[in-house]
Amino acid sequence: MVQEIENQYKEILNEYMKKQTEQNLYVGQNFSRQLILENIAPEDVISMHKVAIQELYGELPDVVWHSFDFLIEMMINYGLALQERQSLLKQQE
Amino acid sequence: MVQEIENQYKEILNEYMKKQTEQNLYVGQNFSRQLILENIAPEDVISMHKVAIQELYGELPDVVWHSFDFLIEMMINYGLALQERQSLLKQQE
Repeated sequence: MVQEIENQYKEILNEYMKKQTEQNLYVGQNFSRQLILENIAPEDVISMHKVAIQELYGELPDVVWHSFDFLIEMMINYGLALQERQSLLKQQE
Repeated sequence: MVQEIENQYKEILNEYMKKQTEQNLYVGQNFSRQLILENIAPEDVISMHKVAIQELYGELPDVVWHSFDFLIEMMINYGLALQERQSLLKQQE
């Protein structure tokens, strides 16, 4: 994944973590639209999230990291379903 | 969401958290296929995950719960993209 996207994600997440406002969530939602346009899979979002949280809050207990690993695994099939959407959209062109 | 699915998720997650084996991940991946078939959105998976982790590890710092809330928000547009897939598949029938 492009380093720039990871940095942007970390920054947007960090702002949210500090204040948790509606405005922060709105920025996050807009960013997620951009991620979808760039074909970033949902499991990649979780990986990026885990890395960002590790950098911001590295001292959290191990169960937190294991929990993200499980979520990544859960999202892989969602990513495949989204790829199918891409193919279907292409067929329609 | 059906309570039974939430309970199943929590059980599968709990097994993974205890041992983190390949076998546990395999069970998780199979379960995620079932969730997609039942049209459970990715943001609902994160919500369910948050609830399960709260029940299993309620003492974690607040940043963990905030971090899941942000992820839920990030997944909403992914859920919408998946709904589009459903419509496209129906059009093809």
